[in-house]
This record gives sequence, structure tokens and C-alpha cells, in this order.
Amino acid sequence: MTTRNDCLALDAQDSLAPLRDQFALPEGVIYLDGNSLGARPVAALERARAVIAQEWGDGLIRSWNSAGWRDLPQRLGDRLAGLIGAGEGEVVITDTTSINLFKVLGAALRVQATRAPERRVIVSESSNFPTDLYIAEGLMDLLQQGYSLRLVDSPQALAQAIDQDVAVVMLTHVNYKTGYMHDMQATTTLIHECGALAVWDLAHSAGAVPVDLRQAGADYAIGCTYKYLNGGPGSQAFVWVSPQLCDLVTQPLSGWFGHARQFDMASGYEPSRGIARYLCGTQPITSLAMVECGLDIFAQTDMASLRRKSLALTDLFIALVEERCAAHDLKLITPREHARRGSHVSFEHPQGYAVIQALIAQGVIGDYREPRIMRFGFTPLYTSFTEVFDAVQILGDILDQKTWAHAQFQVRHSVT
Amino acid sequence: MTTRNDCLALDAQDSLAPLRDQFALPEGVIYLDGNSLGARPVAALERARAVIAQEWGDGLIRSWNSAGWRDLPQRLGDRLAGLIGAGEGEVVITDTTSINLFKVLGAALRVQATRAPERRVIVSESSNFPTDLYIAEGLMDLLQQGYSLRLVDSPQALAQAIDQDVAVVMLTHVNYKTGYMHDMQATTTLIHECGALAVWDLAHSAGAVPVDLRQAGADYAIGCTYKYLNGGPGSQAFVWVSPQLCDLVTQPLSGWFGHARQFDMASGYEPSRGIARYLCGTQPITSLAMVECGLDIFAQTDMASLRRKSLALTDLFIALVEERCAAHDLKLITPREHARRGSHVSFEHPQGYAVIQALIAQGVIGDYREPRIMRFGFTPLYTSFTEVFDAVQILGDILDQKTWAHAQFQVRHSVT
Repeated sequence: MTTRNDCLALDAQDSLAPLRDQFALPEGVIYLDGNSLGARPVAALERARAVIAQEWGDGLIRSWNSAGWRDLPQRLGDRLAGLIGAGEGEVVITDTTSINLFKVLGAALRVQATRAPERRVIVSESSNFPTDLYIAEGLMDLLQQGYSLRLVDSPQALAQAIDQDVAVVMLTHVNYKTGYMHDMQATTTLIHECGALAVWDLAHSAGAVPVDLRQAGADYAIGCTYKYLNGGPGSQAFVWVSPQLCDLVTQPLSGWFGHARQFDMASGYEPSRGIARYLCGTQPITSLAMVECGLDIFAQTDMASLRRKSLALTDLFIALVEERCAAHDLKLITPREHARRGSHVSFEHPQGYAVIQALIAQGVIGDYREPRIMRFGFTPLYTSFTEVFDAVQILGDILDQKTWAHAQFQVRHSVT
Repeated sequence: MTTRNDCLALDAQDSLAPLRDQFALPEGVIYLDGNSLGARPVAALERARAVIAQEWGDGLIRSWNSAGWRDLPQRLGDRLAGLIGAGEGEVVITDTTSINLFKVLGAALRVQATRAPERRVIVSESSNFPTDLYIAEGLMDLLQQGYSLRLVDSPQALAQAIDQDVAVVMLTHVNYKTGYMHDMQATTTLIHECGALAVWDLAHSAGAVPVDLRQAGADYAIGCTYKYLNGGPGSQAFVWVSPQLCDLVTQPLSGWFGHARQFDMASGYEPSRGIARYLCGTQPITSLAMVECGLDIFAQTDMASLRRKSLALTDLFIALVEERCAAHDLKLITPREHARRGSHVSFEHPQGYAVIQALIAQGVIGDYREPRIMRFGFTPLYTSFTEVFDAVQILGDILDQKTWAHAQFQVRHSVT
């Protein structure tokens, strides 16, 4: 059995441990929800102050040029690119994941409309993150061109679902509930063999697991920066398009920031070459600028090191929960196999919502997802082995003592 | 002739003058570009600090509930509503103006597709802000349903252009170049009489001129908060939909924040009732939160008072320029008629770009728009009469001395 002292020893040996000092985490909290909202880099406060006081307050409109606001989506995209196996000039950070999905899905369907117009099916998973399905639904409803969504209930059912009717396969690389991670390369190959295009949502992957979009031969990718990348609440999302596809079509949200010569103010739209055509409107700059503070921390390590620690943390958590909470009705729904596991671990419990509320009340912050899922994110940049140990003891106590049954933990909040 | 002492006297009598203290404007700058990026409310820095340090840093994921992040687009929308004649629960602040235009245009076409499917024309102005035209173009290209854009070259040509083929008329209330202001009520009536729907872009109107969307009978409106509303660089845009139309159709960017029960995580999209269905994805919270600081200042006055001062400022500017710069090749392109004038004034000059650069070098910040247009915004919350006087003297000196001819003022920046 792993003891707390063992965990202290693991922390002492952890070469990533010093990076935690670059995050401002509150006292008395074990934060296992960096998969939902990343912790605050210490530097973010000063960065925002500089943007607000100097760039906005003093620089005023001049800062679009002098402070580099105009090119911030591209500049930050270049800094993020290495974390997902993208090249320079291939990523922009802009808008939201939902909006960016609409752009790439619209573009992918447009590419397929020229290559294989008979293909009118979008394949995804019923367990995909809901907004991805909603966006696909909205696009199909708008188009009224006979598109339909074909949802599979398990990753294993994908191969059979992808046939000659399929235009696009839209998958989230790491499932938001279970933490199941697709084999991006094998799945993309399968998709391409069937003549479809692959859209990958990296919301739970970027900064969490190694991703190599180019190596995998992916076509489109989107994802968010406010989870593992620690960009700040609701910070802008990213979008990547394979250079082979990028200039083939115009994406449907063709706003002025995507124009080849924005300030010519021409009345007709002419897209920029490259990923800049995926820009649309003016970005909230203060929030966008803080994304860099998270990326600065990633620049001090590498995804292979982060992955090693991530797996060690999730292995430890699973082992400790199964030991300490063996008497309780917990069901692991996250793959044990490393190659299929992201950086969060989920257990089902009949009182999952209330257990999570009881944990939060004791300073262990995880989150809850319908139905019955208790979700715990492990972020190697700032989560320690000892925290994992302590969190499991608190979870065990809550289950043993049925603390979750208190009325206060049954109240539903609007955001779970 | 109005003297500088006259202007000092006007400032001394100006009941709005004390509001300037709530803005952090740099020394040595006369800021006449609040129509492009509003000045910084002093309070914005502290608001951002609280969001970053407390709400994000300490509250972490809990702040979606405890700090009210989830409902911030609605709460701020309610605070903005009064400035544009909208009711409570009718406005959200979210995404960008371009994105919001896509939503309302998509919705408007969908409404018309049920009411009058033969109508396939969108009317706008060739001088409309380019991104509005680009977005319409992108939507039409996406739909492939025979829609086309009919552009008129002057407001006077609108009446003839709106016929039984027209589904939607999409206009910017105050023209970004000329400052021409449409009669919203009369134009909306005209649009409705022809069976079309009216989409109003209030980018240069909200906080600049009195707007009464309900009184005018408007159908849809969008606009930005980073200009006259002083929300901060790239701060989120707003969207309003007439309650008579709002629940008729789903807007096309149907992301999870617009879902009736977001955290049920249902796989099918079901729109919220009311304006919340115009939400889509997770918003950059720090930037969004600062919008409130600008609105707080508006709450201390009213649009009628602001309009009186705005017209006094623009009247003064026009009179002084025409007097002081009479020897130069300046052409006023802003209406002299109060009822047709927004809150900025534009003059054409053959060397407009270089003149603006020379002005900026001397601390007078206006901006330039193709072709030849020098644009000066007047924001009654913080622009003084004396500043107008001083700015005109500097402009006169630059023109007299041909300072604009220096090589440094000929260099084109990416953002003009």
C-alpha cells in the first residue's frame, strides 16, 4: 500500500514540482479540476495589469499596432503549436471552441462538397461533448442540404459507422466524461481510408497529453486554452487546419480579421492565406493576452515529462481509491490502459453529485458530470502526489461517514 | 469666432465634466478615437484584479456559480439594455459583433424562409462596415440557397431597393466613415411596410446617440462594447432580438451556453427561451467583467445629456475646423443636420493618412479610414470643449506647415 510518506518521497523526486510555484493556488485546496478551469499562473495578474493600465489606458487605439494586439491570435498560436504537433503559422487562438468547431466543420463539409458531394453524413460519438453535437446540429439545420449526424455509442463502433456516405468524422480526442483517449493516428488513418475528413476536438488533450496533429495526418483541430493550458476563465480557443486543406475553401464565419487586407476596407471578402482566414472578429484582448502566461510555463518543460507524471498521478489515484474506498459503490469508467487514458479519472457513484459537493466543502475540488460521474483532473504542472493521497483519504471519509447525505450537498447549482 | 476662453467657459458649465475623472487618460493626449476604442475606466483595473486574483485564482471553478460568471452575459446585457431602448432579459453581451451578426442574420433569414420563402435578397449599403458585408457574404455562400446581397450607394437609395424580393435589410445605424445616422424608426417602418426584417448594427450608436429599439420597432440589433461603451480592448459584443421574434427560430451557432438546460449535457440541442439562446460558447470572463465598469459610468448620466454635449462638441469641431483650416483642402463628409449625425466627424483630405499620423505624433489621436478620411470621435463622458479647440489648432498648424509630408508619417501600419 502506498503511504503518505511514499507520496512525499515521490514529490521530492519530482522534477516538475518546482513549476507549482508559478501558480497562485489558494491555501487549503486540493485542486483536481484543472481539466475544467486551469489554475492561475502568478504572472497572469501582472500581464493583465500591463494590458489594462499601459496598453489600453496609455496606448489606447495605438496599441493595436504598438502592443501587437492585431497579431496576438497568430503569435500565441505559434507558441501553442508545439504542444499539439502543429507547425508555425498553422494555429490561431481566437473565439470559442464552439465557434471554431462551426468554422472547421463548415470548411470540411465544403471541401467534401467538391470532392465527394454524395457524402452527407457526419459521424461522431453520442458521448461527445454536447456543444460539439449541438454545433453540428446547428450547421446541418442551417444548410438544409441533407446532412445528418450518425452517432456511435462506443469508440469500437466507429469503424463500422464510417462508410462511403461519411463526409466528416468529428471526435473529441479525450472524452470529457470517461477520460478515454482515442488513438489519433490509427483513427485518422481509418477515417481517411474511408474517404472522410477528420476533425479533432482537443479540449481535454492540449497540454494534457502528447498530441501530434501532423504526424497523425489530422485535417482539422480545435480546442480550448482555459483547461490544461491555464489561460484563464473562458480564455479563447484555438484552431488548426492542415496546410493541405487550409487555403482550399473559405470558412463560413468570414469576418474582417480573416480578410487578406483588413484595413483596405474593401466591400468584398477575400480570405487571408493560411490559418489567419480562421479569424473573424475583434478579440477580447485582456483575456487573450493572459493565455501567454500559461504557455510560458509549458515552455519550461515538455509534454513527454508531463505525460509521465500525469500517468503516475492517475495510476496512483486509481490504486488508492480502489484500496481506500473498496467498501463503496464506486465504478471506474476511465481506461486502465495508459494508451487509452487522458489526464483525468472518473468514477461513477449513485450519489456522485452530492459526494462532489461534500468534497468541495472539504477543499477537494473535482466536478460532476451527468449521470453519476465524479471527475478528477490531474495537472502535472501543479498537482502533487501527496495531494492525491490526501484527496483520496478525504473521499474515503466522506463515503464512510455518508457526509454527502447532508441536505446542503443535494442542492443543484447551475454549473456543475 | 469661438476662443479658447470660450471653450474653458463651456467646460466650466458642463455638468458631465466631472465624469472624466472616472477615466484614466494619459497626460498629453487629446483622445478623439473613443469611437474606435473607448478610454479606460479607472475602475477597470481593480475589477480585473478581483476577477483574476480572487475569482479565478482563489475561487477557481467554483466561480462559475459563486462569482456569477455563468450569468454575466445576461446580467451585463440587462445593464446595457436601457441605453438602446431594450427591455430586461432582451440583451446578452457575448462573442463578437461579426459573430452576433451571423447569428441574427441567420435567424432573420430563417424567419423569412417560413413567412415569405420567395424573398432571397439582403439589402445593405456599399458603405456599410466591411465585416458586416463579409459576414452576409459568408452566410449566403454557406447556404447556397439563392440569396444575394443588394447594396445601395446612399441612404436615399434604400427606399427604391427594398422590394418584394427582400428578406432582410441590414444597416449600420451610424456610418463608420461619414457619421451619417439613419432615422431608425422611419427606416424600420419602411422596411416592415415592404415585408422585410430590419437588422441594425449599433457599433457606432450604443452609448453615442439615443437609441430606442422597441420604439423603432426594430427586429434585431447587434453592436460592440469597446467603442463608446468603454468596455476595454475587444470586449464582447451585444445582441438584441425583438421578443416577438426571439423564440420563433434557433440561431445557427447553437452552442451549449444557449441550451435550455446546459448542464444536463443532453445530446440534442434545445434552445433556451429568450435571448439566452443567442449565447454559444464560454466567454473570456476577465474581458467581459470589465464591460461593467463602462456601464457603471453611463448609469450616472443619461443619453439625452450625452447627446446634447455630443452635438455641441461636433458642432464646435466642425465650426473651428472650417474656420482655422479654411485655406486647406478639407471636405466635411459628416452631415451638418443634427438628426443625421452620430458622434464622430470626418473630413476628407488628399493626405488624410499622413495628417492623422502627424496629429498622433503631437498627441491628438484620431484615426484614418480609406479613402482619404480623417475621423474624429467625440465622447461626451471624457472629451472637453477645450480639447476640441486645442486639437483644431494643432490640425491647423500641421496643415499650414505641411508637417504631414515628413517621411515618418507616410509609413502604413497594419491597423489604421
